Amino acid sequence: MVKKGILERLAEGVVIGDGGFVFALEKRGYVKAGPWTPEATCENPEAVRQLHREFLRAGSDVMQAFTFYASDTKLENRGNEAGQKFTGKNINKAACDLAKEVAAEGDALVAGGLSQTPTYLSASSKSDVQKDFRNQIKVFVENKLDFLICEYFEHVEEIEIAIGVCKETGKPIAATMCIGPEGDLHGVSAGDCAVRMVKAGANIVGVNCHFDPFTSLKTIKLMKEGLEKAGLKAYLMCQPLAYHTPDAGKQGFIDLPEFPFGLEPRVTTRWDIQRFAREAYELGVRYIGGCCGFEPYHIRAISEELEKERGRKAVATSKHDAWGGGLVMHTKPWVRARARRDFWENLQPASGRPFSAALSKPDDWGVTAGSDILKQQAAATTKEEIQKLVNFKK
Amino acid sequence: MVKKGILERLAEGVVIGDGGFVFALEKRGYVKAGPWTPEATCENPEAVRQLHREFLRAGSDVMQAFTFYASDTKLENRGNEAGQKFTGKNINKAACDLAKEVAAEGDALVAGGLSQTPTYLSASSKSDVQKDFRNQIKVFVENKLDFLICEYFEHVEEIEIAIGVCKETGKPIAATMCIGPEGDLHGVSAGDCAVRMVKAGANIVGVNCHFDPFTSLKTIKLMKEGLEKAGLKAYLMCQPLAYHTPDAGKQGFIDLPEFPFGLEPRVTTRWDIQRFAREAYELGVRYIGGCCGFEPYHIRAISEELEKERGRKAVATSKHDAWGGGLVMHTKPWVRARARRDFWENLQPASGRPFSAALSKPDDWGVTAGSDILKQQAAATTKEEIQKLVNFKK
Amino acid sequence: MVKKGILERLAEGVVIGDGGFVFALEKRGYVKAGPWTPEATCENPEAVRQLHREFLRAGSDVMQAFTFYASDTKLENRGNEAGQKFTGKNINKAACDLAKEVAAEGDALVAGGLSQTPTYLSASSKSDVQKDFRNQIKVFVENKLDFLICEYFEHVEEIEIAIGVCKETGKPIAATMCIGPEGDLHGVSAGDCAVRMVKAGANIVGVNCHFDPFTSLKTIKLMKEGLEKAGLKAYLMCQPLAYHTPDAGKQGFIDLPEFPFGLEPRVTTRWDIQRFAREAYELGVRYIGGCCGFEPYHIRAISEELEKERGRKAVATSKHDAWGGGLVMHTKPWVRARARRDFWENLQPASGRPFSAALSKPDDWGVTAGSDILKQQAAATTKEEIQKLVNFKK
Amino acid sequence: MVKKGILERLAEGVVIGDGGFVFALEKRGYVKAGPWTPEATCENPEAVRQLHREFLRAGSDVMQAFTFYASDTKLENRGNEAGQKFTGKNINKAACDLAKEVAAEGDALVAGGLSQTPTYLSASSKSDVQKDFRNQIKVFVENKLDFLICEYFEHVEEIEIAIGVCKETGKPIAATMCIGPEGDLHGVSAGDCAVRMVKAGANIVGVNCHFDPFTSLKTIKLMKEGLEKAGLKAYLMCQPLAYHTPDAGKQGFIDLPEFPFGLEPRVTTRWDIQRFAREAYELGVRYIGGCCGFEPYHIRAISEELEKERGRKAVATSKHDAWGGGLVMHTKPWVRARARRDFWENLQPASGRPFSAALSKPDDWGVTAGSDILKQQAAATTKEEIQKLVNFKK
Repeated sequence: MVKKGILERLAEGVVIGDGGFVFALEKRGYVKAGPWTPEATCENPEAVRQLHREFLRAGSDVMQAFTFYASDTKLENRGNEAGQKFTGKNINKAACDLAKEVAAEGDALVAGGLSQTPTYLSASSKSDVQKDFRNQIKVFVENKLDFLICEYFEHVEEIEIAIGVCKETGKPIAATMCIGPEGDLHGVSAGDCAVRMVKAGANIVGVNCHFDPFTSLKTIKLMKEGLEKAGLKAYLMCQPLAYHTPDAGKQGFIDLPEFPFGLEPRVTTRWDIQRFAREAYELGVRYIGGCCGFEPYHIRAISEELEKERGRKAVATSKHDAWGGGLVMHTKPWVRARARRDFWENLQPASGRPFSAALSKPDDWGVTAGSDILKQQAAATTKEEIQKLVNFKK
Repeated sequence: MVKKGILERLAEGVVIGDGGFVFALEKRGYVKAGPWTPEATCENPEAVRQLHREFLRAGSDVMQAFTFYASDTKLENRGNEAGQKFTGKNINKAACDLAKEVAAEGDALVAGGLSQTPTYLSASSKSDVQKDFRNQIKVFVENKLDFLICEYFEHVEEIEIAIGVCKETGKPIAATMCIGPEGDLHGVSAGDCAVRMVKAGANIVGVNCHFDPFTSLKTIKLMKEGLEKAGLKAYLMCQPLAYHTPDAGKQGFIDLPEFPFGLEPRVTTRWDIQRFAREAYELGVRYIGGCCGFEPYHIRAISEELEKERGRKAVATSKHDAWGGGLVMHTKPWVRARARRDFWENLQPASGRPFSAALSKPDDWGVTAGSDILKQQAAATTKEEIQKLVNFKK
Repeated sequence: MVKKGILERLAEGVVIGDGGFVFALEKRGYVKAGPWTPEATCENPEAVRQLHREFLRAGSDVMQAFTFYASDTKLENRGNEAGQKFTGKNINKAACDLAKEVAAEGDALVAGGLSQTPTYLSASSKSDVQKDFRNQIKVFVENKLDFLICEYFEHVEEIEIAIGVCKETGKPIAATMCIGPEGDLHGVSAGDCAVRMVKAGANIVGVNCHFDPFTSLKTIKLMKEGLEKAGLKAYLMCQPLAYHTPDAGKQGFIDLPEFPFGLEPRVTTRWDIQRFAREAYELGVRYIGGCCGFEPYHIRAISEELEKERGRKAVATSKHDAWGGGLVMHTKPWVRARARRDFWENLQPASGRPFSAALSKPDDWGVTAGSDILKQQAAATTKEEIQKLVNFKK
Repeated sequence: MVKKGILERLAEGVVIGDGGFVFALEKRGYVKAGPWTPEATCENPEAVRQLHREFLRAGSDVMQAFTFYASDTKLENRGNEAGQKFTGKNINKAACDLAKEVAAEGDALVAGGLSQTPTYLSASSKSDVQKDFRNQIKVFVENKLDFLICEYFEHVEEIEIAIGVCKETGKPIAATMCIGPEGDLHGVSAGDCAVRMVKAGANIVGVNCHFDPFTSLKTIKLMKEGLEKAGLKAYLMCQPLAYHTPDAGKQGFIDLPEFPFGLEPRVTTRWDIQRFAREAYELGVRYIGGCCGFEPYHIRAISEELEKERGRKAVATSKHDAWGGGLVMHTKPWVRARARRDFWENLQPASGRPFSAALSKPDDWGVTAGSDILKQQAAATTKEEIQKLVNFKK
């Protein structure tokens, strides 16, 4: 039996994405924060397989091959050791195999992803950037993945190049930028970004990462309005953070002091995510998933909120009754009294941290492309360089 | 080669426990909140195995068989369906096999655990309670587990019975109560609880669950003082929550309105846990692990803080440089500037939730043993019963 | 010697206003919250005189006669007893006398104020509204006050009428609306409001009340841009709340649940106000004062921040050394260590309220002009009416 | 007609104190924070008279002469200029006159107060300390004040000396220490402090200043238990801060970083104070008033809560209807909907400060009597000394 393609599925209803691999696997002990490279596909395939499987059980319709940032330059950047053991090709081939294996356990599609490259940031020529993307995309074509996702781009110009390269393969293309309502880092508005992505050839457009679910929907709304004004059509897609970031500046959560080792108090609850799923659906978003911070139970929350619209339950819903329903089996009566929707819908959960504020002031260094301290290098960062940065911060 | 036993290891240095299975597997989609029963050992052994493995890689010296609450009465309580598919014996046998399998991949010990029973709460005779415990313990003996843990007891009288039953096996016994500095639910002080557990035969005593790391250390301190005053000796053990609960009342986090589906903002960071590990060690605690909320990276934080004392690194430390060190490889310079101890040690992380307070008022219903609404039953809870509870709450 | 007029003073530099009388006198026991009427000018003139004097000492260049809301209709609204003892004319005459008396103790000007009327809200004809304003203004003319302030208007149309009436007197006119960056309650933008006020004849325009200092400066910025675009010139004026209201909706702090008896944790510090004074000055605001919540020490903070620009010290500065300087005389050394600018400038003061959130959700009933529950009446509100409102709220 | 004495009044019911003069007059521009000396009685008697009058109207039964810290040594400490213009005797005589004048406008008593002296801290002999107190007390005797208050003592030994000196006058003596539940700065328990104060001759004992109302009641409870155990009788008195200080350490709010210029978000609402008045009354406290931060409306809240017990209304209650009742006259219906007890009783007021935490970490320098940096001196503090302290802090 032939699987339905991504565009067919979107035409029929809503498609649920998966969650963020690098953050989940960092917590499980398989990815290093800082380089964030996916050598785990070779080193510990069982851990990657298990995470895919959990998302599949949670209702994901798409298994995205775990290739984030696995370009050879990235594997060697600033002293990363992964580059000495594996090539980007090894890692990405293994990623495709794992995603395909688990997708076949259900009815999921497999997607391959491109994201922003140091090559573009280093202001090389357009053809250099294209070469880099073509190199990465080869493995997706050879492994016959179902469609391509260009994601985590901050500059619309760069994602246009990526979309152009993807178009050469003839596969459906989803394109999401990691921007907020203020638009891309060159000042292009969210609406114009959407228009340019569609004109470049994307079938599905939207945002991923960098901002929380509700901020991301604001961006999507602007994109939708931009497309309508331009008379263009595309499916909308939203894969936000599972962290509350009302205080993030233009570059999102990376600028918050909590990134990446103090984000715990910002993690969204399943109820936050159900609300997000509903609001996204009502806005017309049809590809709804997550990025950093999304764990399997967050994806399940999307599946549960949209159970009626999708006409089916996620496998893992067998372990979760709607709106806290499982608590009717709890031994303490006051916990059983929480087995109801209005309790969880209205809860404003406390942090247990009386010495913490609600919001942080993001780093806002004002350095831009061309600044020395933005340059990448193969050599490890020295203590002196760090001290210089600390002083710069003050 | 023969593995060193738990008491030998404690005599030589510090032993690291594992984290909480029910909460971690609930988020991964394999355990239902409410009944919290461990049928996943039969239904999805690969998920349980993977979690064991992650804790092993994080530095756990003990794999605890995932049998929490798998007594037959519990499997059938208030409409739980698990009891129709599996017996407690099936589930617990599978749990032992999985724990042993992964323990053998490293140099870990395997422990079997007993916890409080509905039988005791229903005020049956002592011999009924003993029978229940003997029944549960059989599988641990047949599977030759290395030692026994009596944990999650709120009444010292009940844990004395449990310890007594464990003593019949001749295996080393660890005993931890889920109490805070106010003592057990009958008003026995923490110090007296420790004394009675040691007198009952426990080799290792302390607390687990219900309270955060720092509140738990306060309890342990009282236990230590109680033992010293009584002239008794025992190893100290602490396996707290990975949630900040300064506002929990006598019964701990279960009484907080956030339990169990809104605890996210309370999750401890790795830096909180490093501080806990250090303070625990300095207090003389030699068995340090976690309970609900502890994910593999929290256990790794213990291993890293005590690396010198233990003379070895956890496997998963290959994916984590101390004090944010991996960030020297980050592409943004302001993130590289966070690659230092004083940054993370002093961070008071924001919640991103301006509509949430720092603390909650716990439920404090004042119902006690004997109250009708505390009685367990096989039938599912009805809507009317829930409405009665909601009204009671007001 | 003749006093310099308000326009001369503004041409030469910055003018400092006074603070909010109704809130300050409510806390001192002379004004009733709810009706907020100023019968204290007759009942307890010494209390009103004392507050004027404190503002004068703090550096106020303007004594505003305490006539807020003293129209006869208001004195009788919904069961207010003040209307039985005094006429608006009595109260307002006494207000003028007190303001003039204290102004003469320094070099201050005296202003008379008009604010929005129930007559306009009841959708009477323009001439009815004009009549109401003419009636109120008479006492200011008879008492030869120095200039007029139209303040606390939510509808630009109404303030245009007020300005028109004031223009008949030939006195300089200041006009401030109680709006935020979203504009007036009919959807007229802040920029357009400024333009229309200037065209109607105001010499000085800006905002007062309803929003905190920093939100108010955002509104002023929009007004300034509107005037520049229209090629108009006017002095800018800002008299905001001394309460932090980042969460207030379109109608400002009145919609916050803390209004008016729980605003304490929102009170600005003197350091907040110094920052406000600096930012206001840099934006080009030349009439800087306060409204509800501003106590004498807040006005002194403005005087101190702008001491150099004004070339003189406020009298009460003899009791306040800059940036906590007086603490060098404290007996405890750690308090002496706080006698420095960077300490106070960077302090984010804690609330001591772990059960409170940072922000509130404002009431947003969506009722508009014409709605029955908005109608004013002479009879006291009944319990039944209140219950109806409480139910409406749910 | 002869006024009833303080002991008679206490025998018959509850007595209401006044609020804190130094903090209120600092905000009004008449007292300098740091030295906190009361030269305003000479410089601006009308301001002191007005504040007395406001407390009288709010229901205070006692006018305390405004002599806080007006000993000659204090007037000259660390560069204070007040000592050059006035003697302690001038200031204190004027203070007595003002208190008596206003007391006569109602039925209030007049009290004179002693508080801790640098003489004791400098470890002089007991007779030196006695001499200092006798010197201060003379003016109270000469002016025939009704009774004496020894207040704001941190060392029970010092207050015993003060009580002893007061006893020589034959007047009734109230004695309150500025301690919390941890007891005095020498480690004497709160219960023992109470016992020793009564044994020294105090008729009324309790606490004032340094801690919030609810923490102070905890201390009073310990005092009450101490007295009961010792078989002693005395009236209980509580005059706490109007600031929330759950996070203050042993020395109270002075150690909090917000002291004294950033305490605004900690100010208690009138509802907090009504709750305090009720809890104090139920604990058996019969002299209930306030200290720093208490404004007239806080004292009125005590009067209103205890209206029935006292059988009379405060004058200023004519400007305040119980539980927000005045809001029935508000023009906006959603504000009228707040005219009810359960609204205000349950409100947890937001701070409007998303960058502030709920609690602060107090300074805890661990310096004790004898430490160099604790020594007082007549010369002004130098910049170098401040820098040394700032470094010490780090």
